[in-house]
Amino acid sequence: MARVIVDVSLKPEILDPQGRAVQGALGRLGLAGVTDVRQGKQFVIEIDGTVDRAKLEELAGNLLSNPVIENYSITIEQA
Amino acid sequence: MARVIVDVSLKPEILDPQGRAVQGALGRLGLAGVTDVRQGKQFVIEIDGTVDRAKLEELAGNLLSNPVIENYSITIEQA
Repeated sequence: MARVIVDVSLKPEILDPQGRAVQGALGRLGLAGVTDVRQGKQFVIEIDGTVDRAKLEELAGNLLSNPVIENYSITIEQA
Repeated sequence: MARVIVDVSLKPEILDPQGRAVQGALGRLGLAGVTDVRQGKQFVIEIDGTVDRAKLEELAGNLLSNPVIENYSITIEQA
């Protein structure tokens, strides 16, 4: 049993208007010193048995993220 | 300078149709053994100076997440 966490974020050179809106709101609501906010997606995947790492990389890079504008990172926690 | 990561996920008792769709797709595309997928949001917040932890908790619980259906977790990385 393993828990795989795939974090998907916009590439640094891609504008993130959602993150910019959150940055403005955090400042207005009193959180001091915020210089940047980026919003991404997170997939928490429970896998029974061994994790097919190569397949996982392929699907994280093509199904879970858009390789044109997004990066992904994979964290595997064995339970 | 600190990097604050706020992960927002649906509460376990809330149905996650997006996650369910991803679970189906991962299986069909050849990733074996997937028993559950949950999709969440991730905010990466860069803060200059000290982090106002109380304010951060307040905003993570009310602005960044919907307390009726979502949980959040906060990770602070000092740079």
